[in-house]
Amino acid sequence: MVTAEALKDIVGSDWVVTAKDQIEPYKIDSTPVAMMPKAAENIIVVKPATAQEVSAILKLANRETTPVYVRGGGTGMAGAAIPTHDGIVLSMERFDKIEEIDRRSLMAVAQAGVTLGELLEAADAENMSFPPHPGDEGAQLGGLVVCNAGGARAVKFGVMRNYVKGMEIVLPTGEIVTMGGKLLKCNTGLPLMHLIVDSEGILGVVTKVTLRLYPRFPGTATMIFSYDDRNEAINTVPAILQAGIIPLAIEYMDRDIAELTANYLNMTWPAREGKAFLIIILSGSNEDEVFSQAEQVVEVCQKHGAVDTLMAERREEQADILKIRSEVQSAVSPNADSLDTAVPPGEIGTFMNEVDKIAEKYGTRIPVVGHAGDGNLHHILMQDIAERGLLDAIKEEVYDAAIRLGGTVTAEHGIGKKGIHLLDKYTDERQKQLMRDIKKAFDPNNILNPDTAIVP
Amino acid sequence: MVTAEALKDIVGSDWVVTAKDQIEPYKIDSTPVAMMPKAAENIIVVKPATAQEVSAILKLANRETTPVYVRGGGTGMAGAAIPTHDGIVLSMERFDKIEEIDRRSLMAVAQAGVTLGELLEAADAENMSFPPHPGDEGAQLGGLVVCNAGGARAVKFGVMRNYVKGMEIVLPTGEIVTMGGKLLKCNTGLPLMHLIVDSEGILGVVTKVTLRLYPRFPGTATMIFSYDDRNEAINTVPAILQAGIIPLAIEYMDRDIAELTANYLNMTWPAREGKAFLIIILSGSNEDEVFSQAEQVVEVCQKHGAVDTLMAERREEQADILKIRSEVQSAVSPNADSLDTAVPPGEIGTFMNEVDKIAEKYGTRIPVVGHAGDGNLHHILMQDIAERGLLDAIKEEVYDAAIRLGGTVTAEHGIGKKGIHLLDKYTDERQKQLMRDIKKAFDPNNILNPDTAIVP
Repeated sequence: MVTAEALKDIVGSDWVVTAKDQIEPYKIDSTPVAMMPKAAENIIVVKPATAQEVSAILKLANRETTPVYVRGGGTGMAGAAIPTHDGIVLSMERFDKIEEIDRRSLMAVAQAGVTLGELLEAADAENMSFPPHPGDEGAQLGGLVVCNAGGARAVKFGVMRNYVKGMEIVLPTGEIVTMGGKLLKCNTGLPLMHLIVDSEGILGVVTKVTLRLYPRFPGTATMIFSYDDRNEAINTVPAILQAGIIPLAIEYMDRDIAELTANYLNMTWPAREGKAFLIIILSGSNEDEVFSQAEQVVEVCQKHGAVDTLMAERREEQADILKIRSEVQSAVSPNADSLDTAVPPGEIGTFMNEVDKIAEKYGTRIPVVGHAGDGNLHHILMQDIAERGLLDAIKEEVYDAAIRLGGTVTAEHGIGKKGIHLLDKYTDERQKQLMRDIKKAFDPNNILNPDTAIVP
Repeated sequence: MVTAEALKDIVGSDWVVTAKDQIEPYKIDSTPVAMMPKAAENIIVVKPATAQEVSAILKLANRETTPVYVRGGGTGMAGAAIPTHDGIVLSMERFDKIEEIDRRSLMAVAQAGVTLGELLEAADAENMSFPPHPGDEGAQLGGLVVCNAGGARAVKFGVMRNYVKGMEIVLPTGEIVTMGGKLLKCNTGLPLMHLIVDSEGILGVVTKVTLRLYPRFPGTATMIFSYDDRNEAINTVPAILQAGIIPLAIEYMDRDIAELTANYLNMTWPAREGKAFLIIILSGSNEDEVFSQAEQVVEVCQKHGAVDTLMAERREEQADILKIRSEVQSAVSPNADSLDTAVPPGEIGTFMNEVDKIAEKYGTRIPVVGHAGDGNLHHILMQDIAERGLLDAIKEEVYDAAIRLGGTVTAEHGIGKKGIHLLDKYTDERQKQLMRDIKKAFDPNNILNPDTAIVP
């Protein structure tokens, strides 16, 4: 195993951490506690600052076959970053520079440890925007890229993959390679860059990314539509899209989750009517455009049973609503598990009803939040389910229902370590073999996150 | 080598073609004639109708190590589909069914041999749209997917990759596998599906695709802005985007190319003023929205030196303009070559000027059309350049200029066979080795398009 001394020779002694108490934060991430894999005992944290240092660390680890766990913002919810074998945690926190916000090409070039919050701020300062909002703003860009993060606001312009245009990556064998660039079109042999996106850090260490920016939308509005009947809320979603309006986001929340989260944040959920809510974010080239879209959306929603409408125009009001939506997972913690299924967008109503039936059958309640425009739902399994020993049975029924409807059981959080058995169960043998072969081509000694789903 | 008899046993004797004259059309594609690789002599064309038949053919070819060239619409411009070794052309023309246009999930499920034109029509009939327009409407969906086609209208919602949500694929070893689904989010292990997109048909035969649709935009407008000075036209592009407007397309054309193509089509280029044109397609949720965008765009363009504006609102007028833009390559044929570079969008003005200098140095003129919003330009090298023996020298200088500006020399047409030396020259050895390893994992006997850039 690689020693702390050897790592100090590479990055300097200030950037190698071995003290147990200082290592603790690197042993957990944002996976629900009950589902979190247990970290190993003998961990060294190393904090390189350059691709060359990462290269030297990986070459050493590759020679000594020492496991390496790349660490971003620790906001992952599937346990991917947790060091489950003795080895090295390679923290990207010093890769914190935004190298360029290019107004003419509408691109950002940033090191992998820059946080989402920092990118949003930098883009805003240059009158541009990064439309998706893939979760916690403490997430780092490298992690967002390798996890192909989704989040709210993927309805109009898609998930992270659509924004990733270039990267610098250090391979487990130590080579530093660059792919793509500030390029909207780049078809150059097999698309290795798009294999890295969503590889969950098992193929290489992303050190720098080039991301597409959009203009800042001069007009935006966030609206809450209240419904007494959830099915009516859900049935509104395709009707909005069919009217020719593509919001940035169409989110769904139950009242109890909305209020629980607002309380947790010492805030107030602003919608007084209704039991079920759609949160819709509109964007446009100017305020008139957003107003005219909003009018159309209001009409569609009222026609589909909305009992109240609330429109937030000021930036702070909009941010408050998004904040409540974003913090649901923290608010419900500790909970038994949060699921991450997606079904075809037209099937979410059916799927929600199926899950209700499962909950009823087991005498419990399963609240739900989700990205309604994407068909991506997070069912929240509360402690009572685990206490009554029902967790596995309920999860299996929910998963089977999603699959029956043409869905997936790992939509945006990825496989990580939490989902290893899911990949195994729902993927055919030939595809798993291809994944293993690819892993072997990139990482012949299986040093990067070795206890992943994809191992020989 | 696999015999015609063996193939007839699989698909029936009506669907195996061996007559020389009937095979001729399968030996060419849309690559400029002067650059087209020469097909081999002993070719059998087979036309399966099901994934099971494709599987049986590939198993046989794999056993006998017979080269297989998958054939879509033949609209590729890099020679990928041309059978350069004795073997089998596997034509997808019978995979011509659109299985479903799903209004609730906004998805199309179609066999791989369905053409772009057929998809556009089917989506339109259900009040939906497929926003990108990746070239010739005779292109087949399978080809569009494996080539990650771009074309005009990638500015707002991106290239084919952003639309591909699911596929059925037959691997060279015969397994039929499905990936993704009608799902906007699906992070399930290594993203094999996104490795297939842009693999140019060397990893498997795509038999069915699930594509994201958008609502039909109730409002659209196509505008032509005329400029006397090309640099002013090009400098308008980032200014439009920075104003918060993202058109579906921002295309650039020189006057001589516009008129040449219009004449070729027996049409008239509608813009009377100017030497350089921007064609801008706007879309929105309603007509008011498009008008207000159009007003903003007119203001930006006039401020940047536009001398005339022409707005096409009727569908036929809009279609005529797009037709002229789409048929440039046919109109200039036969030409020595058409290049396919992309540079960071903010650099296209500089790049155009560099190419002008190269043209001047060699005493010629190099007209250009391109996707200005994407930074993707097609420089058209006319016959005089080849006749004077300058082709390689000029190409090398243009390519080096693109690379210097952070660009790529294979933007949207792919590598195919025409670009083998380009992949070789501009890609580092480690990445090429990874591509070869991946090819081997999918296609151990190298039967699918064996004379590609990526061979062991």
